[in-house]
Amino acid sequence: MRQYAAILGNLGNTKDRFCAGYKDNPDTMTMLRQAAGIANVTGIELVGTWDIRPDNVKEMSRALKDVGLQCVSIIPDLFADKVYWKGSYSAPDAAVRRKSIDYTRQMCDIAGELGCGIINIWPGQDGYDYLLCADYEAGRGWMCEAVAELAMAYPDLKFALEYKPMEPRTHSYLARMADTLLLAQETGCENVGVTIDTGHAFAAGEVVGEAIVLAKRAGNRLFHMHFNDNHGRWDDDMIVGTVHSSCYIETLYWLDKTGYSGWLSMDQYPYREDAAGAIGESVAWLIQFDKIVRNHRAEIDQLIVAQDAVATSRFLRSVLAQ
Amino acid sequence: MRQYAAILGNLGNTKDRFCAGYKDNPDTMTMLRQAAGIANVTGIELVGTWDIRPDNVKEMSRALKDVGLQCVSIIPDLFADKVYWKGSYSAPDAAVRRKSIDYTRQMCDIAGELGCGIINIWPGQDGYDYLLCADYEAGRGWMCEAVAELAMAYPDLKFALEYKPMEPRTHSYLARMADTLLLAQETGCENVGVTIDTGHAFAAGEVVGEAIVLAKRAGNRLFHMHFNDNHGRWDDDMIVGTVHSSCYIETLYWLDKTGYSGWLSMDQYPYREDAAGAIGESVAWLIQFDKIVRNHRAEIDQLIVAQDAVATSRFLRSVLAQ
Amino acid sequence: MRQYAAILGNLGNTKDRFCAGYKDNPDTMTMLRQAAGIANVTGIELVGTWDIRPDNVKEMSRALKDVGLQCVSIIPDLFADKVYWKGSYSAPDAAVRRKSIDYTRQMCDIAGELGCGIINIWPGQDGYDYLLCADYEAGRGWMCEAVAELAMAYPDLKFALEYKPMEPRTHSYLARMADTLLLAQETGCENVGVTIDTGHAFAAGEVVGEAIVLAKRAGNRLFHMHFNDNHGRWDDDMIVGTVHSSCYIETLYWLDKTGYSGWLSMDQYPYREDAAGAIGESVAWLIQFDKIVRNHRAEIDQLIVAQDAVATSRFLRSVLAQ
Amino acid sequence: MRQYAAILGNLGNTKDRFCAGYKDNPDTMTMLRQAAGIANVTGIELVGTWDIRPDNVKEMSRALKDVGLQCVSIIPDLFADKVYWKGSYSAPDAAVRRKSIDYTRQMCDIAGELGCGIINIWPGQDGYDYLLCADYEAGRGWMCEAVAELAMAYPDLKFALEYKPMEPRTHSYLARMADTLLLAQETGCENVGVTIDTGHAFAAGEVVGEAIVLAKRAGNRLFHMHFNDNHGRWDDDMIVGTVHSSCYIETLYWLDKTGYSGWLSMDQYPYREDAAGAIGESVAWLIQFDKIVRNHRAEIDQLIVAQDAVATSRFLRSVLAQ
Repeated sequence: MRQYAAILGNLGNTKDRFCAGYKDNPDTMTMLRQAAGIANVTGIELVGTWDIRPDNVKEMSRALKDVGLQCVSIIPDLFADKVYWKGSYSAPDAAVRRKSIDYTRQMCDIAGELGCGIINIWPGQDGYDYLLCADYEAGRGWMCEAVAELAMAYPDLKFALEYKPMEPRTHSYLARMADTLLLAQETGCENVGVTIDTGHAFAAGEVVGEAIVLAKRAGNRLFHMHFNDNHGRWDDDMIVGTVHSSCYIETLYWLDKTGYSGWLSMDQYPYREDAAGAIGESVAWLIQFDKIVRNHRAEIDQLIVAQDAVATSRFLRSVLAQ
Repeated sequence: MRQYAAILGNLGNTKDRFCAGYKDNPDTMTMLRQAAGIANVTGIELVGTWDIRPDNVKEMSRALKDVGLQCVSIIPDLFADKVYWKGSYSAPDAAVRRKSIDYTRQMCDIAGELGCGIINIWPGQDGYDYLLCADYEAGRGWMCEAVAELAMAYPDLKFALEYKPMEPRTHSYLARMADTLLLAQETGCENVGVTIDTGHAFAAGEVVGEAIVLAKRAGNRLFHMHFNDNHGRWDDDMIVGTVHSSCYIETLYWLDKTGYSGWLSMDQYPYREDAAGAIGESVAWLIQFDKIVRNHRAEIDQLIVAQDAVATSRFLRSVLAQ
Repeated sequence: MRQYAAILGNLGNTKDRFCAGYKDNPDTMTMLRQAAGIANVTGIELVGTWDIRPDNVKEMSRALKDVGLQCVSIIPDLFADKVYWKGSYSAPDAAVRRKSIDYTRQMCDIAGELGCGIINIWPGQDGYDYLLCADYEAGRGWMCEAVAELAMAYPDLKFALEYKPMEPRTHSYLARMADTLLLAQETGCENVGVTIDTGHAFAAGEVVGEAIVLAKRAGNRLFHMHFNDNHGRWDDDMIVGTVHSSCYIETLYWLDKTGYSGWLSMDQYPYREDAAGAIGESVAWLIQFDKIVRNHRAEIDQLIVAQDAVATSRFLRSVLAQ
Repeated sequence: MRQYAAILGNLGNTKDRFCAGYKDNPDTMTMLRQAAGIANVTGIELVGTWDIRPDNVKEMSRALKDVGLQCVSIIPDLFADKVYWKGSYSAPDAAVRRKSIDYTRQMCDIAGELGCGIINIWPGQDGYDYLLCADYEAGRGWMCEAVAELAMAYPDLKFALEYKPMEPRTHSYLARMADTLLLAQETGCENVGVTIDTGHAFAAGEVVGEAIVLAKRAGNRLFHMHFNDNHGRWDDDMIVGTVHSSCYIETLYWLDKTGYSGWLSMDQYPYREDAAGAIGESVAWLIQFDKIVRNHRAEIDQLIVAQDAVATSRFLRSVLAQ
């Protein structure tokens, strides 16, 4: 059975580089209640420092129990703190690299206290903007060492690396599924894997179904899923299904076929929309797409073998647009 | 009522720059019969020289009557003849420019004989590949003069300029809706307008609904529609609806709202698919999308005023994916 | 002779949607002095409300005189104030549309007091994010009416519309040169024209040289230039010349050929760089590119007529990379 | 010392999907003489079947000696033969997969006879066009098995897999550096590596310098280099240096830093240009960029550590544009 989650901060943060906030942000507890109120959502992802810190673990633990949400992952804040402006695990400054690891360990300890099994690592500041401005060899090496150190220190946690081709840097070190798998393998740790954010994959020119298969072949390393939609060029973080349809059907099919048993978590930026409504829509779309997959699995099995686009189109027409 | 058409050559040509042809091409008459056999297709577009020449007009006219197809447009071949390798109407060589105009006049005469009201101009070779390798001012001037000369010489024909951002040149002179409208207006002729190819628009970063509105506001200049789908980056010429869904609903809605009464013609490249099957699928998708628009017009009227993405998502979910 | 300027805010704002600021922002007067200290910069663009308001016009006027900078344009803040979250001139709410016009008039009055001839309009929030969530006809109509009202009210000011394909909306109403020209023409006002931001043009798939020619042909409507570089997919707002070279040579050539006599203003986001240094670099690149154009104008004249990429390459090699 | 090569067919083939050929193709021996006449070119890549077959090996061997060119790689034709229309090594039809392997073995034997050490594998038809039309797991598995079988059968040859994100399929199985490295590693063969085509990398959103480092870290697997330029969105196969400059400097720097000792081969499509001239220009650009790297290596060493874009810009300005 699918389990749906959301990232807590999606209910609040609406700033961009031009505007400091399109809406007033609710406080954490209000957002928690809103998240719990979204139909079918039973899991929550917490961003380190923003949502969860050593000083509020107990309070958060109680609040989660109160609203009936399970902490699905913790996302260490390696991107909003300006100390990481030139990278976290791969920062040129060794002290910053150390700090980013120590901070992540703190988050790992909190995960233990909350019974949360996944640390979702999005090292958004690790990358580069200009050519001839980065030592790719050193950067990738440091990134790998840091992740390995963490994974070995916390063997019971899964470290899910969330890749993204760009933004906030013009180029990220963890840019796509395959390069993230190379790094995961290089750590030598089986508890290092990958988070697919569907919108990151679209912007990277990937087909999510194929990315899922790559992760499977590289040692069953798909640990977590973030869902949203976009116009194909940038991480617009929109409601699932509002631009694309067929790719979600394919995605869910391959999640099943590769035995994915993790969460389906929503990751959106509802700048100008009702946040809970927008997240709820994404979940509702996924439930409908999932019903299509469940009801037509044998048919899809045949379509992917037949490689006949006319037949696939006929199938899609029969389940969409009627 | 909608009227559906196809481009005859789509049933045959399957070459690309690597392979001289993925399938054996049927002859013209076989393709005509195949086109006539596609459900709901009653119109056909003929490519100049390939399908229609002064020497076969009578024969083609009879064949069209036999199979029950109406000639919807003639597409002068300004792209396959290597004399146009550096442009047709905007070629740097005046003799080539003259030839391209004279040739188009020949096609206009044929249109008259066939009772066809639209000349679909796709000047695919008119543009440039390298920077500092084109006189944009002269090129655009020549293009404008040629179209104006033709439009004034054949006031009863509609000249539908088909824009495309790139390919075969890295940059086309008629690249997007708005620059094509500027040129159409500059000719001073009301019988100069635009063809939207949905895939060209996607690759250009346009939203087709908005492009339709631009054409309406610039003097009701949308003359013709070509339909296909793609992955958003290139003119993949795929079956409608296999990548995107919501955008076709929006497109059909705006066609109606702006009073478009022309044909919906399919323009695809079924390299590895059954050609008639692939074209038939596109028509079938459009018919289903159209049914959605017809059944929910008032609801869509409200959605585009409300600007509430959650409500729009809810609507789309109710008509797709269930 | 070229005149170089910068946007004052470029020396300060370094926030993005993840981080509230990578650096501490200097105050306005410090930024003014920094701008004045950049070699060859003699003009400054002020953002409304942030930099200039009715209450500080006199003070700013004095400060500009003190540091020796001329106010080149005023950029009304139609993007940071969250009242414009769903658009300014094209907002669905009539009261917001009214407010955006009234606010711009205030900025026009200030321009008069400062002896500034250009209002640079960047309506960043005017557009849409989702399909079936905007009335393109109404939106474009309102945008046109607003600009016309302003242009008629202030006939001595030039209204330079700055287009951009996306961000902060996934689609902007003023997206590219040609659609912006259509709107400018529709206003019927000769004092409505366009600002090219080179990075916006790159991200839009335009060649700047051709965009300049379009503006020329549409009634000499290129009023202002913003310079920066990017990786071709997004408005990275980087230092000129760090990714591309040849396109700036072509741009400067066509500015001259079309008789452009306006400012060359830098528009960058030096999130992680020394701001004054980054802006100064852009100016220095442009000066060097300009020298190439000046020294080789006749040669370039011939190259654009010859349309021989090998010859153009040979020329570029002789002026770059040796 | 650098060694420069070209692909023989680049001197001839100028067809695209619209035009069967923009120029008349010279015969093979003429092309060979033209290639040998390009300054600094001493190596040639031969396309299987087109240029080299069992029946002409002796003749070709003699001709190469006559004109003084060394055969640098053989590129089996897995893309122009329509039997491979749905893939070669990963074709759904087992007989086609067998044929593609047997054919490649034939080319490997020829390589032996010609003293050529590299088989450059570009499996252009291996991928997919539509969603829900491919079994990614099977396809990738077959691809891996085929390459492994070949690599084990010919341990003295290097198998250089040339990745490309798309075209002729909308999605290729070997799409980018990292996924190609995953497959290379999966074969378990040290003689399986990668060819970077700079234009493929640009279109894939990669920075070539970083791709080089990935290959180094994955077991020193960069075997071969193809050079060209493009506008960043598609494989335009243009003259090096006509769009970008700084990225070639960075590329050459990282080739040296990672100890690359292979050939620099030109891969272009001079549809409308003098072919030998266009290829010669690319070589000439690379020689100039190389001189910059040689003369400023220590400076670049410092720049990539400093991560100061202003300093990097200042350096680039000092070596370009003056």
